[in-house]
Amino acid sequence: MDKIDVTASSHSYKIFIGENIRFQLQSFLTKSYSSILIISDEVVAPLYIDDLRSNFTKGKLFHTILPSGEQTKSIETFYSVHTDAINAGLDRNSLIIALGGGVVGDLAGFVAATYMRGIDYIQVPTTILAHDSSVGGKVAINHELGKNLIGSFYPPRAVVYDVETLQSLSAREIRSGYAELVKEALISDQEFFNTLLRTDIQQVTAEELQAHLSLGIKIKATIVQEDEKESGVRMYLNLGHTLGHALEAEYGYGTLTHGEAVAIGLLFALQVSENLFSKQIAYDSLFEWIKENNYPLKLQQFDEHALLNKMKSDKKTVNSKIKMVLLDDIGSPLVKELSDQEILDALQSFNRKLVTE
Amino acid sequence: MDKIDVTASSHSYKIFIGENIRFQLQSFLTKSYSSILIISDEVVAPLYIDDLRSNFTKGKLFHTILPSGEQTKSIETFYSVHTDAINAGLDRNSLIIALGGGVVGDLAGFVAATYMRGIDYIQVPTTILAHDSSVGGKVAINHELGKNLIGSFYPPRAVVYDVETLQSLSAREIRSGYAELVKEALISDQEFFNTLLRTDIQQVTAEELQAHLSLGIKIKATIVQEDEKESGVRMYLNLGHTLGHALEAEYGYGTLTHGEAVAIGLLFALQVSENLFSKQIAYDSLFEWIKENNYPLKLQQFDEHALLNKMKSDKKTVNSKIKMVLLDDIGSPLVKELSDQEILDALQSFNRKLVTE
Ligand SMILES: NC(=O)c1ccc[n+]([C@@H]2O[C@H](COP(=O)([O-])OP(=O)(O)OC[C@H]3O[C@@H](n4cnc5c(N)ncnc54)[C@H](O)[C@@H]3O)[C@@H](O)[C@H]2O)c1
Ligand SMILES: NC(=O)c1ccc[n+]([C@@H]2O[C@H](COP(=O)([O-])OP(=O)(O)OC[C@H]3O[C@@H](n4cnc5c(N)ncnc54)[C@H](O)[C@@H]3O)[C@@H](O)[C@H]2O)c1
Ligand SMILES: [Zn+2]
Ligand SMILES: [Zn+2]
Repeated sequence: MDKIDVTASSHSYKIFIGENIRFQLQSFLTKSYSSILIISDEVVAPLYIDDLRSNFTKGKLFHTILPSGEQTKSIETFYSVHTDAINAGLDRNSLIIALGGGVVGDLAGFVAATYMRGIDYIQVPTTILAHDSSVGGKVAINHELGKNLIGSFYPPRAVVYDVETLQSLSAREIRSGYAELVKEALISDQEFFNTLLRTDIQQVTAEELQAHLSLGIKIKATIVQEDEKESGVRMYLNLGHTLGHALEAEYGYGTLTHGEAVAIGLLFALQVSENLFSKQIAYDSLFEWIKENNYPLKLQQFDEHALLNKMKSDKKTVNSKIKMVLLDDIGSPLVKELSDQEILDALQSFNRKLVTE
Repeated sequence: MDKIDVTASSHSYKIFIGENIRFQLQSFLTKSYSSILIISDEVVAPLYIDDLRSNFTKGKLFHTILPSGEQTKSIETFYSVHTDAINAGLDRNSLIIALGGGVVGDLAGFVAATYMRGIDYIQVPTTILAHDSSVGGKVAINHELGKNLIGSFYPPRAVVYDVETLQSLSAREIRSGYAELVKEALISDQEFFNTLLRTDIQQVTAEELQAHLSLGIKIKATIVQEDEKESGVRMYLNLGHTLGHALEAEYGYGTLTHGEAVAIGLLFALQVSENLFSKQIAYDSLFEWIKENNYPLKLQQFDEHALLNKMKSDKKTVNSKIKMVLLDDIGSPLVKELSDQEILDALQSFNRKLVTE
């Protein structure tokens, strides 16, 4: 089992990564709680909720099972989970456990952040992508006008990451999660990036997967410790997300997974970077890897103006200028403000490239 | 002008209290903002929003005007103000200004706490009661099952309290606000309490009012600095609120103002305290003052079991035992867990007392 410490401004917490550790949940809790509410989704709950429940043989234990998918991060679900928590009698000494992917984690975390002005919660991520979402304390729901627009910075009390639960993931969800690992490698670790380029992600062993997740989480944890509230280096974690979020919004959540959209966004960020610094960084090798691992690339030709508008409504936009994370080199990210015209030009040539490949 | 410093865990801020200082708002801001959204209600906006707007002669300035009253602290209004903020193009460097009473302050503060995971806001309270709600960083909306159940601890960047704006308050709102001042006096300052007992609150001068507000705010600020997240002494500020909140919920928000309900709750807390410690504390003198100042007391005979249930759904309830703030003496509060039966008995005798008076 790997163990990673994270120091947040409000408290410190540990991330546990290992096989079958979902059965040791009790031992990762640092205090006792008056009652516990497990929040999960309809795909994950049938697979793992009983395992989780078996940790708590006595005491008040409740659960709420939500529809699976991005539409669960809505104001309506947020409110209805609050209703469930109230009806279950949760008080300020209660615990919420988020069992699922990033959707469940973001939603349950935001409920915990706002239930009676904040109660404890722990993350039990069950997707590869959630190695990213479960660490760092960003919790949120979506507004119909944009993703993650309503939320808080509210770190969990622990992250219990049982890699065994990742066995049941679909090929698509494996792809989605690996995109964020590639992102972390790109912003800080050439060697890790090379390792990933050599990886066929559908054939990865449990040991490899655990190693990749630990590396990714360490990168993320280091960054969020330095800049919890995203006023500086935490921005780098948005590499690939400016276009990624816009693609998700434009094509409708569900058409592309978050990670699939980020993978395309990473390529775009590399193209812009290579153009700006007039040198090769990693566009070609990443492009090959993305194709080999069957990420969707040939989108119906996209509408640059629509994407530009979506990019401008992103949270990272300040004064309505788009700030993009770029790479000067692998491991050397920077933030650059780009004009609308620069973005449009880059999108056009990117579009042409993808279509002609 | 009085100036009070408050140190919160995330940052420090100042409370300014004085006459006509709403015209000096600019000078109280410690940084410049990309855009500003003023949130107010339909009663307050016609009176003071132009004064506020006149502080910002250039730049992006928006406003949202909400219905007045407790029902504005709803999930629907919360979401619609987020929509307004997005449509106005607010980014992470934007500012929200809450211009109004506790309803506007709580709602606008919670929007600020959650808009793009938190942006700056300042409180411009316009009720006496809001001397309490605008200090300390508690922000929230109501759930249909209970008041303030969805919220955060999220301190403002400044509180700008122009006592001139209090001139337009109705007699009823003056009463409502003074109940919280009495509460603050009861938990910490015998002399202040005596002063208030001598005060006819409808005849108070601007100087007296400013002095009372400053004293009340200092008491509140001292307590929240010591215990921001309400794990200890901050509980004392709930004196009178266990029954107060239950009455509000039972009679429907709007029948009793918050402060009117708290006034009755204070009496109840004094009765329970005097019984418990077998001594007189201040029940009789407070009762007289409350009558002289025309607080509503003769409620239709209330249903003790219904009130008990409401009291148990309050946030301060842990393990579904009711914790009540009591007084050992004026200036000497304590928290005591009471059984359902003790509460029921106390409610019955309180009810009889009020009805026969
Ligand atoms: N908070 C953050 O810092 C952060 C970072 C990145 C992404 N996110 C958010 O995370 C979300 C995406 O997360 P996600 O990709 O995990 O989505 P998800 O939670 O929807 O999970 C993807 C799908 O896999 C299913 N699933 C989950 N675990 C499974 C398992 N073990 N076996 C089989 N199926 C399983 C789910 O039911 C769902 O259908 C987005 O909303 C994104 O905004 C947040
Ligand atoms: N956050 C906290 O710590 C805290 C503490 C105490 C109370 N509260 C909350 O505060 C709320 C009650 O606050 P409130 O009593 O100020 O209610 P409010 O905001 O509804 O104001 C009361 C009425 O006075 C009107 N009004 C406001 N300013 C006026 C002015 N200058 N002239 C004329 N009319 C004016 C309003 O339109 C409203 O009709 C409750 O929701 C309560 O939960 C919060
Ligand atoms: Zn992401
Ligand atoms: Zn109050």
